[in-house]
Amino acid sequence: MSESIYVGVDLGGTTIKVGICNAEGNLLHTYEGPTGTADGVDAVIDNIEKYVRQIVEDSPYSWDQLAGVGAGLAGFTNIREGIIILAPNIGFRDVPIRSILEGRLNKPVKIDNDANVAALGEAWSGAGRGVENCVCYTLGTGVGGGIIINGKVYQGFAGLAGELGHISVVPDLEAIQCGCGNMGCLETVSSATGIIRMANDAVSRGDRTSLSMVEKIAAKEVFDAAKAGDEVALRIVNRAAFYLGKSMAAVAAVLNPEVFIIGGGVSKAGDILFDEVRRVFAKLAPAPLQTGVTIVPAELGNDAGIIGAAGLLLRS
Amino acid sequence: MSESIYVGVDLGGTTIKVGICNAEGNLLHTYEGPTGTADGVDAVIDNIEKYVRQIVEDSPYSWDQLAGVGAGLAGFTNIREGIIILAPNIGFRDVPIRSILEGRLNKPVKIDNDANVAALGEAWSGAGRGVENCVCYTLGTGVGGGIIINGKVYQGFAGLAGELGHISVVPDLEAIQCGCGNMGCLETVSSATGIIRMANDAVSRGDRTSLSMVEKIAAKEVFDAAKAGDEVALRIVNRAAFYLGKSMAAVAAVLNPEVFIIGGGVSKAGDILFDEVRRVFAKLAPAPLQTGVTIVPAELGNDAGIIGAAGLLLRS
Repeated sequence: MSESIYVGVDLGGTTIKVGICNAEGNLLHTYEGPTGTADGVDAVIDNIEKYVRQIVEDSPYSWDQLAGVGAGLAGFTNIREGIIILAPNIGFRDVPIRSILEGRLNKPVKIDNDANVAALGEAWSGAGRGVENCVCYTLGTGVGGGIIINGKVYQGFAGLAGELGHISVVPDLEAIQCGCGNMGCLETVSSATGIIRMANDAVSRGDRTSLSMVEKIAAKEVFDAAKAGDEVALRIVNRAAFYLGKSMAAVAAVLNPEVFIIGGGVSKAGDILFDEVRRVFAKLAPAPLQTGVTIVPAELGNDAGIIGAAGLLLRS
Repeated sequence: MSESIYVGVDLGGTTIKVGICNAEGNLLHTYEGPTGTADGVDAVIDNIEKYVRQIVEDSPYSWDQLAGVGAGLAGFTNIREGIIILAPNIGFRDVPIRSILEGRLNKPVKIDNDANVAALGEAWSGAGRGVENCVCYTLGTGVGGGIIINGKVYQGFAGLAGELGHISVVPDLEAIQCGCGNMGCLETVSSATGIIRMANDAVSRGDRTSLSMVEKIAAKEVFDAAKAGDEVALRIVNRAAFYLGKSMAAVAAVLNPEVFIIGGGVSKAGDILFDEVRRVFAKLAPAPLQTGVTIVPAELGNDAGIIGAAGLLLRS
């Protein structure tokens, strides 16, 4: 029998990216096109179907070899039922996407949120390759997380496991309110949004920093300033890294994972972030929970979403 | 074919308790005898074998119906290899207990630590019956934990998952050092040891409390005083409950379990503890992570260890 292939769909607000993976998680072909969010739910679904059919047609594989389709997206999903409950960036609310796509494609379909899908991609063929249990942080606008247990995405009771951005880590006296309503969540300090906020606060209060020359501060500017020796910027980066490392010590006490993977835009800061995260984890986690445990950058970049989505068919 | 039975062994420093369970986790017969720790490792192993053979002989079941034997104990274990690495209370160090017992009994044997075994017992036939994912705290001399995922004990990379007592929850400025070397661990405030320490501190510094009349304070006295309206005692109980609830909010963000089970001696405090833990969890956990989630007392008491040990054969 010929090799099975798996199509992953990264369903974003602007672009739909699709890719073909083999059973080893190698990304063989990619294709992308506009999401068509402005044209409504039906148009978006038409586009997903079109791009999936297109990529298989353009590939050396036949439709019969397609074992199934997985899709990842930013939003709340009911994974068991295959329903997108709320995905503001594509304008979906209570859309039973799995049954719709299964009807159109006549193939098995699975969905999950972007953080879980990225974690699965990394676990399947990225920084967590060959590891049974790992925890993946995605540091972007917010802080997302995905938990991989026995090589599969762990969903939890209501599909909400891995909400690592909402571990409360900042002491009460220093905490600010998170978008979730609680105080001191990791997301308030270790997301790009948190880093930018800390930088803007520093500039507003007149701290002496090169960041005061930047018109609109992004996280990258804060990292660049820190690398150039700006002490205010360095303090902000160390604060983001400290609470990330502290949250990892807590996660280690609960799950004792083998590998922590850090991805997302903020992770591109590189050593200046990772060195401090590793130092803090080594200081705060009980010693036996550190033995053999590594903290590594994600490897797949933006492809993690496509690969992980394809992996849902084999590993969820 | 006749019904299979499973023998669980609760291997304590003074007493070895054994029990027969059926495949549904019902405890059908129990038997116990002295551990014989003072007579050395060989004598303890002789006793385990003797009690296991005895309980089956005394029961209506035949040796052929015995599907296997599980054992739980306080200490460090290598679960995969079935080795007791260090168990000070029975004087074991690097004892390959599984292979020894398998050789003597000619039955499959599994081992695990007491916190995991208690969690499995509760998940199998106690407060977590029928629940796929739950987290069990055991509040005793220390704070132990067990993680149940898909009905089985989750071990983690090095078998150290569920070290819930070593989640750092006390803010730096209020933290004291834990036995593990780190600062602010849950165990420093929510264990019996922590509660007794806080009570002794209060008495030493001359706080007005009925506890100053107690010669040797145990956790029960602190709970009794709190129930009788002693404000110092109530503050101690609330502090123990607060950090327990705070740790649960963090665990919920990681694992999104359906049920939190609280067992061990401290849990006998009842409503005065549970009401406050539930209040704090409701305040600190993100709302979606609370939906449908319950915090309940353990149901099996001391039998959890025997039942969970028997369950290792089916659920590990």
